[in-house]
Amino acid sequence: MGILVVGSVALDSVITPFGAKDDILGGSATYSSIAASYFTDVSMIAVIGEDFPEKHTSFLGKKGIDTAGLQKKKGKTFRWKGRYEQDMNSRTTLDTQLNVFADFDPKLSSAHRAQKYLFLGNIDPDLQYSVLDQMDRPNFVACDTMNIWIENKRDALLKTLKRIDLLVINDEEARMLADCSNVLQAAKRILAMGPKKLVIKRGEYGAILFGPRTIFTVPAFPVENVSDPTGAGDSFAGGLMGYIANVAKEDEISMRKGMVYGAVMASFNVTDFGVHRLGELTFTEIEARYREFCKMTLFEDFNKKDGMQFDLVY
Amino acid sequence: MGILVVGSVALDSVITPFGAKDDILGGSATYSSIAASYFTDVSMIAVIGEDFPEKHTSFLGKKGIDTAGLQKKKGKTFRWKGRYEQDMNSRTTLDTQLNVFADFDPKLSSAHRAQKYLFLGNIDPDLQYSVLDQMDRPNFVACDTMNIWIENKRDALLKTLKRIDLLVINDEEARMLADCSNVLQAAKRILAMGPKKLVIKRGEYGAILFGPRTIFTVPAFPVENVSDPTGAGDSFAGGLMGYIANVAKEDEISMRKGMVYGAVMASFNVTDFGVHRLGELTFTEIEARYREFCKMTLFEDFNKKDGMQFDLVY
Repeated sequence: MGILVVGSVALDSVITPFGAKDDILGGSATYSSIAASYFTDVSMIAVIGEDFPEKHTSFLGKKGIDTAGLQKKKGKTFRWKGRYEQDMNSRTTLDTQLNVFADFDPKLSSAHRAQKYLFLGNIDPDLQYSVLDQMDRPNFVACDTMNIWIENKRDALLKTLKRIDLLVINDEEARMLADCSNVLQAAKRILAMGPKKLVIKRGEYGAILFGPRTIFTVPAFPVENVSDPTGAGDSFAGGLMGYIANVAKEDEISMRKGMVYGAVMASFNVTDFGVHRLGELTFTEIEARYREFCKMTLFEDFNKKDGMQFDLVY
Repeated sequence: MGILVVGSVALDSVITPFGAKDDILGGSATYSSIAASYFTDVSMIAVIGEDFPEKHTSFLGKKGIDTAGLQKKKGKTFRWKGRYEQDMNSRTTLDTQLNVFADFDPKLSSAHRAQKYLFLGNIDPDLQYSVLDQMDRPNFVACDTMNIWIENKRDALLKTLKRIDLLVINDEEARMLADCSNVLQAAKRILAMGPKKLVIKRGEYGAILFGPRTIFTVPAFPVENVSDPTGAGDSFAGGLMGYIANVAKEDEISMRKGMVYGAVMASFNVTDFGVHRLGELTFTEIEARYREFCKMTLFEDFNKKDGMQFDLVY
């Protein structure tokens, strides 16, 4: 089945120890839609300004993404500028210009409303709620959020959390939302807020999936040439949700495989600026990297008969 | 086969957000020997002072550990005092009194020299080298180290690294030793220094095993009641080396299972102060936790026929 992705489309300026790029295609909806597009049909809901280059829209179209929900508004496109430090784990926001994103008000067509899989990227929780209200009857809804909403719009966020299946956030956000530094305690508190499942993203350490009685950990694929970590979390969520929509099953084993595909997409995404690498992948590359994750995590002789080779391509 | 463990025995004073304990049994050799003792026969080489309580020696004896190599010297036992902050990831050393440890000069008996498995805990690399020189012909040697040796005794450390099979260090030490912030690049540089394999411990994020062409990741078991992280890394190394000595094989699959047993031992160790929890485990508990690691990491239907249940006990 297809998936509906709602979030931001941005023009990012990124500085890392390995270079700098200005006004490149970015935003949560962009990264997650492109990642999901390798697995299923994607429709995107976002807002852009009059300055948004046509080549970006046509690039998204070439990835098979339905951009009918990409609303062009008077004014400039959302812009974000940030810098990563040497270890790539910490970043500083240098500038944020909301522009047309400040008045983003997602309106869904009847085709969008009928979608069965929905990913609510990191936007105002009131807007996330408004999208949920417009949907007919989705099978599975995942949602991201961030520190400013946790701090400033906590009640709206809690209202949204009661209606979703899966929350996908990072370590720091989980600790802030749960007001608790222990990851397992934090997970239990967050699951009690409503979501059926929780993914905590941990950057270069991978991610954990928590269910009421299940835990699944996926490592990050160690990558030597990390050029730009921007969008790694959204690529992860896009890969996970794209896979889930593709198999149209949300059972434990599908969620776990989706987590691995998410980690696969994130591992490719960080090796070049913006969506350069993410946007040019082949499914053969994705499947090969997925198999590397098998090799990297296996320790019982479950498949002794297949004679698993542990040697990796890295 | 049995294992020889060389390292420190200490009396630790530990302050955490959950309490404080004074002069409790600690030290790298203590934690790793106790962890290894669940898997194989352990002989310990370390130095203690006249003030070392007899009950500690007899406790080690009750764990089946050969303490003939525990040399009692004139003076006081090595003492360390530290404090953990709220998130348990950062600690501050408040006081270090080397005492008899300052003149530690490990002398091996002929029985010790004949051992086939050796773990060199975190001591001066010159002492580690001296132990290696005394050994007859070990099958497999693992070694730990720390920031002060990497900074102040780099040449001695590099000499030792050329003669070992496995280096077991943490993230920060790996980055310092390799002078490189990317973990995969750091691993490649360290493997080029001599060790055949490298384990990088990452605290609550687990650990990675690097071989020339293999990578294996093990998560940490998420634990709600972390009381005292002291000795987690040594418990990990002890579990890993104890398992390897037990099976007397160092092939890839044995190393991987050993990594999981290491993570099992560390996950129990952190739930109480000092060696309280680590020292009272049963093999049934260890095996049960090992199976939890299987559940927590599996994503392919390798054992479909067994109908893996993902539900965890946590």
